[in-house]
Amino acid sequence: MNRKWLLVARPEGLPKASDFLWVEEPLQPLEQGQVRVRIIYLSIDPASRIWMSHDSYVPAVPLGDTMRGGAIGVVEESSADGFQPGDKVQGVLGWQTHWTGEAALIRPLPKVDIPLGAHFGLLSHIGLTAYFGLLDIGAPKEGETLVVSAAAGAVGSLVGQIGKIKGCRVVGIAGSSEKCAWLTSELGFDAAINYKTEKVSAALKEHCPNGADIYFENTGGKILEAVLNRMNNFGRIPACGMIAGYNGLGAEPGPSNLFHIVSKRLKMQGFIVTDYLPRAKEAVADLVSWYKSGRIQYRLDVSEGLENAPSAVVRMLQGGNTGKAVVQVAPEP
Amino acid sequence: MNRKWLLVARPEGLPKASDFLWVEEPLQPLEQGQVRVRIIYLSIDPASRIWMSHDSYVPAVPLGDTMRGGAIGVVEESSADGFQPGDKVQGVLGWQTHWTGEAALIRPLPKVDIPLGAHFGLLSHIGLTAYFGLLDIGAPKEGETLVVSAAAGAVGSLVGQIGKIKGCRVVGIAGSSEKCAWLTSELGFDAAINYKTEKVSAALKEHCPNGADIYFENTGGKILEAVLNRMNNFGRIPACGMIAGYNGLGAEPGPSNLFHIVSKRLKMQGFIVTDYLPRAKEAVADLVSWYKSGRIQYRLDVSEGLENAPSAVVRMLQGGNTGKAVVQVAPEP
Repeated sequence: MNRKWLLVARPEGLPKASDFLWVEEPLQPLEQGQVRVRIIYLSIDPASRIWMSHDSYVPAVPLGDTMRGGAIGVVEESSADGFQPGDKVQGVLGWQTHWTGEAALIRPLPKVDIPLGAHFGLLSHIGLTAYFGLLDIGAPKEGETLVVSAAAGAVGSLVGQIGKIKGCRVVGIAGSSEKCAWLTSELGFDAAINYKTEKVSAALKEHCPNGADIYFENTGGKILEAVLNRMNNFGRIPACGMIAGYNGLGAEPGPSNLFHIVSKRLKMQGFIVTDYLPRAKEAVADLVSWYKSGRIQYRLDVSEGLENAPSAVVRMLQGGNTGKAVVQVAPEP
Repeated sequence: MNRKWLLVARPEGLPKASDFLWVEEPLQPLEQGQVRVRIIYLSIDPASRIWMSHDSYVPAVPLGDTMRGGAIGVVEESSADGFQPGDKVQGVLGWQTHWTGEAALIRPLPKVDIPLGAHFGLLSHIGLTAYFGLLDIGAPKEGETLVVSAAAGAVGSLVGQIGKIKGCRVVGIAGSSEKCAWLTSELGFDAAINYKTEKVSAALKEHCPNGADIYFENTGGKILEAVLNRMNNFGRIPACGMIAGYNGLGAEPGPSNLFHIVSKRLKMQGFIVTDYLPRAKEAVADLVSWYKSGRIQYRLDVSEGLENAPSAVVRMLQGGNTGKAVVQVAPEP
C-alpha cells in the first residue's frame, strides 16, 4: 500500500487538518523506465507553505494532487537502467510512503560517508542554500559582521557556522532562549537575539557595534526593517525566504525603511537553490570537509510518521523547530 | 550682497515657508585660496528633501545653515590657483546667490560644447545617475523591457532614452497626461502610464506583454509593489531614490510583495551617484555624443529667482516638474 497526503484546499493563514486528505492505495506494478522509492525522510520547508497556496518559481500544487515535498529514500524496485534496489536517492517525491515514477526525476545521493539524515541537515537544498547564498551573494570578508535571521532553522544555523569559518562576527536572531543558547554555546555564534523577548533594534546595536555588512534574510517583515537600520554602506542581503509573509500570502506590509537600500547602497538579491545545482559539487565538498573536521554541525528536528506531516509544517511555520525539520516516514535502512 | 536661504526648521511632510529664512549679508573679501562664484542654476532634487530632515549618505543640513544644493555658476573673483574670473564651475554651493569658499570644493564644468543648463539637464549628477544606474546595475540587453518610474523627471527621462538606445522596450510611469505625451511623442518611449488616472497593474500588463526585466526605481511605495508583480525572473532593480517615502520620513509602508525578490531571483541595488564620480568621463562622453547626434534630449523645468527655491522643492515633490527642476538664480553669462 502507498499512503499519502493530498492537498484538497488552499490554506488561509496556518494550514489546518481539513486542507489535506489521507489516502491509501495499492502499489501499482512498475512500467518500463520507472523506479519505486520507499521514502525515509520528508523535508519540511518554508517553501512547503508557498506551494500550498500560490505559484512561485514553481506552480502551486494542484488541488487533489499529492502534496509536494523533497524527500530522501531507498529504491525498492527498479525497471530503469542505473537504479538498483537499495540505492539511496533524493528528489521531489511528495508526501507519501512510496514514490513511483520516471528515473529521470530522481538523483542518487552524493557518495559521501555521512549519516543519511545529513543529506538533508547538511547538504541537499539546505546546505546549498546556505553555502551559495552566503558565499556568492553575501561575499563575506574576514572581520565583517553577518546577521542571520531564523538562525536556529535549517539554513540559518549553517549560514552562521559558514560565516564563522570565513572569519565573520556572526549574530543570530531566533525565537527562543533555548535556540539562542544553542547558537552561541554549540554553534559558535558570537551573539544571539531572542526576537520574542528582546528589542531587536537595541540588541542589534549592542551586538553589531560596527554595524552589519551582510544580512542573510530568511524572514522579511519587522526583522528586515530592524536590520536595514543597522546595515553598513555597501551591505549585501541575500534573500532566500521571507517566511513572515508566507501565511499572509503577501498581505503583510513590507519594511517602511527601504530607502536605506539607496542611501546605504545595499544590494538585496533573491535566489533559488535550484539555480545553483550545476555547482553543487563545490558546496558538497566544502560542507562535508567542514563537517568531518568538526567545524560545522547540523541538527534534525524529526517528526515521526507521515501522518504528522501537516502538523510538522505548522510547527515549522510557528518557529517550533530547531535545525532542519523533517518527517521520518520510515526507519533508516 | 549675498542673498541666501537658511534652513531654520525641519519640515514635517511638505516643506513650508516658515522652514526657511531669507538672509542678506555683505560679501566678505576673499581669503587666500578662496574663490567666489556667482550662482546661475541651482539644482532642485528629491535629495533636497532628505537633507532638510535627516542624515543619509550625508548628514542633514544643520539648522541655521544655508540650505544645501548643487549649483552651477561662474567664478567672479579668485585668490586660488587654477580658477580665473569667468570660469564655469559646479559644486555643492547652496541656496544662495554667491558662494565663497575653498577652491578644492568646486570643479570646473566638463569642457564640452553644450548649453550651460545641459550640465544639469544632461550631465552632472543627473546624467551620471541615469547612465550608471541603468547600464551598470540594470545591465540592459537588447529586446528586454525596461520600466521607469518618475519617468518625466530629470533622471527618468534620460534613463528611458538610454534604454531605447540600448534596444529595450521602454515603458514610463508618470503623473500627468502631458508628461506621458512628452515621453511617447518626443522621447521615444514605447508606452507611458499615467499613474494618477490609470490602474498601474493593469497598464503594466498591457504595456509589458513579456514582463519587465529592469525596473529603474525612483519612487518606492505602491508603484514598486505593482512593478514587482510584473518583473521577470532574474530582473534587476537599480534604486536611486524612493521619493514616495521622503515626505513621510520613512513612515510609509513598504511593498507587501517583497517575496518576489526571492521567488523571481531579483536584484535590487541602491546606488549614489558620487560613487561613480571616478568614472564620470565615460558617461559624459556617451551622453554628449548621443545629445549631439539627436538621440537623447533633456528639458529644464526652470523656476525664476532664488526666492522661489522653497516653492520649487514643493512643486518637484508634488510631481509638478517635467524634466530637470532648477532655480535660475542669475541670467546665463
